[in-house]
Amino acid sequence: MSKSKPTLPRGTRDFGPVVSAKRSYIIDKIKHNFIKYGFSQLETPAIENLSTLTGKYGDEGDQLLYKILNSGDYLSKTSEEDFALGSKHLTTKIAEKGLRYDLTVPFARFVVMNQHEISFPFKRFQIQPVWRADRPQKGRYREFYQCDADIVGSKAIWNEVELTLLFNDVFNDLGLEDYVIKVNHREILFLLADYVGLKGREVPFCAEIDKLDKIGSDKVIENVLALGGDAEKVSEAMNLISTTDLDKLIESVQKIDESNAGVQDVIKYFESLDQFSDKNIKLELDLSLARGLSYYTGMIYEVKPTSVQMGSICGGGRYDNLTGVFGLEGISGIGISFGLDRIYDVMEELNLFPDNITQPLDVLIVHFSEANLKHGHRIVMQLREAGVRADLYPSSDKIKKQFNYADKIQTPFTLIIGDDEMNAEEYTLKNMQSGEQKPMKVDEIIQLFKG
Amino acid sequence: MSKSKPTLPRGTRDFGPVVSAKRSYIIDKIKHNFIKYGFSQLETPAIENLSTLTGKYGDEGDQLLYKILNSGDYLSKTSEEDFALGSKHLTTKIAEKGLRYDLTVPFARFVVMNQHEISFPFKRFQIQPVWRADRPQKGRYREFYQCDADIVGSKAIWNEVELTLLFNDVFNDLGLEDYVIKVNHREILFLLADYVGLKGREVPFCAEIDKLDKIGSDKVIENVLALGGDAEKVSEAMNLISTTDLDKLIESVQKIDESNAGVQDVIKYFESLDQFSDKNIKLELDLSLARGLSYYTGMIYEVKPTSVQMGSICGGGRYDNLTGVFGLEGISGIGISFGLDRIYDVMEELNLFPDNITQPLDVLIVHFSEANLKHGHRIVMQLREAGVRADLYPSSDKIKKQFNYADKIQTPFTLIIGDDEMNAEEYTLKNMQSGEQKPMKVDEIIQLFKG
Repeated sequence: MSKSKPTLPRGTRDFGPVVSAKRSYIIDKIKHNFIKYGFSQLETPAIENLSTLTGKYGDEGDQLLYKILNSGDYLSKTSEEDFALGSKHLTTKIAEKGLRYDLTVPFARFVVMNQHEISFPFKRFQIQPVWRADRPQKGRYREFYQCDADIVGSKAIWNEVELTLLFNDVFNDLGLEDYVIKVNHREILFLLADYVGLKGREVPFCAEIDKLDKIGSDKVIENVLALGGDAEKVSEAMNLISTTDLDKLIESVQKIDESNAGVQDVIKYFESLDQFSDKNIKLELDLSLARGLSYYTGMIYEVKPTSVQMGSICGGGRYDNLTGVFGLEGISGIGISFGLDRIYDVMEELNLFPDNITQPLDVLIVHFSEANLKHGHRIVMQLREAGVRADLYPSSDKIKKQFNYADKIQTPFTLIIGDDEMNAEEYTLKNMQSGEQKPMKVDEIIQLFKG
Repeated sequence: MSKSKPTLPRGTRDFGPVVSAKRSYIIDKIKHNFIKYGFSQLETPAIENLSTLTGKYGDEGDQLLYKILNSGDYLSKTSEEDFALGSKHLTTKIAEKGLRYDLTVPFARFVVMNQHEISFPFKRFQIQPVWRADRPQKGRYREFYQCDADIVGSKAIWNEVELTLLFNDVFNDLGLEDYVIKVNHREILFLLADYVGLKGREVPFCAEIDKLDKIGSDKVIENVLALGGDAEKVSEAMNLISTTDLDKLIESVQKIDESNAGVQDVIKYFESLDQFSDKNIKLELDLSLARGLSYYTGMIYEVKPTSVQMGSICGGGRYDNLTGVFGLEGISGIGISFGLDRIYDVMEELNLFPDNITQPLDVLIVHFSEANLKHGHRIVMQLREAGVRADLYPSSDKIKKQFNYADKIQTPFTLIIGDDEMNAEEYTLKNMQSGEQKPMKVDEIIQLFKG
């Protein structure tokens, strides 16, 4: 047994009291809104069969899956030849299970396994960690939380509207004002691909558009031309993509194809949202939004902070075929995902966490003797039962040691019990910042903290 | 890519909406009380270095650890000889990480890694899943939650008292009345071991006492005699162990050794709890309680349901040396753990879950036309914003289909919007059980559900 100082695996983190409290604060607001909007919770196991996970995230994804060694004598069914064939081959012989890579594939698996019990439309949320054997870097971890909500089995545009309202409510609840919800529609991008002469190459076209932020418009045009786009039309399309005026945009797209499904959806979507204009939703149609994932087929979203340099903090979109990979066709839906770590970083940078959430205590009780301590037993329970976050220094150490502890844990108040206090049932409340002391009865203390 | 129907790995579970809601109900009550008693949350990663986990749970535990294959070409640093040496050897070459087996070792690791930042006494709680490659059976899973609270760096008896009050509060909050908290003290068991002539063999003696429930007193006596116990004294000790009268018990133990640390603690513990006699804590000193884990050195607890056939639903105790395995000596503490799955089973069997927690909706809005649906957009949001759990059928399907859906999801009420309702701004609320219908304005509906 090694006694060397233990370490954490690279790319993983402990969340101590302060960070945990802040993360819980965000998660609670998201969860509250998921429930408010009628989503039910689903939890799936961290461990999935590799047959469920493999082939769902592309070749790179397969490599980033964490694989779990079979239990017991896992080599018993292997041969020297298996070993000689190398890691990739041997894995198929010695590892049947892996760690969840995202929440979407497990959700699809759940829907397929429970298709006869589920009533559609089915609204589920899921807030759980996922694991990726990626190279760790700033803001990228090997274990991180996803917070997803999906509505499957309904193609109605109300779903798109509702999820937009949900974004708005979550960020309002978090006090995060500087953000914009960007939306686009894959069908419009597909139309533009066709327009510039890239019919059948819509997905590579979208992948190039997705790079606009990173490599700039000149380079994107170059790449689209290299795909085989018509120079004049590419230039037109790029002008269109950079348009920010909603009406002008819609008009231009309709000039290309009036009946385009994407533009119809977008019109209905904005019309529906007009009913909620009092909410001042920070919304923008942005044709340059493409989203990396290939399975989106309809409206797509991204939420970006506007006063902090950072990528998107939420994303999502409509997909045609969630469960086709598991042999169940025709289940379409729409989903969104909140990026907990990035939202955390934005909240931290903008100083949006309320002070009191990271302060576990309102008051620590300190005392001068065993008898005072014992008296404190009842007092601390009275305060706790009234909802005051109170604790009691547990042993009758020297008062100086107790006050040192109070300073270290940064309790805002101490309550001092000596013999006089005990007899009078009136205790000394000390403000640890100002040093001010005041005699108070239990009821008055409760009044102070809860009143 | 296989299109065969996906499955779950053995011993793992999906928690769908109903089960998730019930589990959240229990977890929320436990967490609320952890916070009420001044514990701060800690979260550690699922993935730990195997060097942290191995050797901490005995040989059997080491075998039950889930090991994760190293990423990439994990065989590149192995030889044919490594392969020939077999699974156990090869594991050390190809797997550096494993899944968390419990919450205690990661907590100890955290304390050692953060010893200079932590102020002692340190009260932490942790509610997270753990993984064991155990043979699955009824009530035993390979992935399950633990809910732990520990106080480290304090030897004061108030900690023992406080954790007892916490047990009591959690079960009160859950409405679970039929249970008993059994306590014992390892020092008393060690004293009895010495008394029967088994000095130096205290731990095997405790292991035998631990079997009383399962194999009965005759067999335990036989085993203790086989360990080398004195026949007459073993018989005396067994009588003492079966005594249930607290005063008599204490008196008998004091006859053997008046200054025994265990009996001193027990006296102080019960004296302190006398102050809380109004709480009617269901508490019992039970000398036959031994607890399996070898690291307990002081008071030990177990909570057992009394009206359901089941083992303990909580356990815990005081330990001398949490972090010694990581080279940091002298950190003692006391911890308790709530068994979520078993508490769930007891709650289910006694029908203690409130009905409304598994009902995600108060009311589903149904409608007769696109215009009615669009009117419903605002109504559903008004209801949600007032705290009513409302949802809207998202598309203008036939009303029959909408009511079918309402039946399937078991919504207690529907709110019907037709043209008349829309114009009058008074909607038809239908009780789905009785079929009763009633015209109501939005304010009245809010009043009904929230009033």
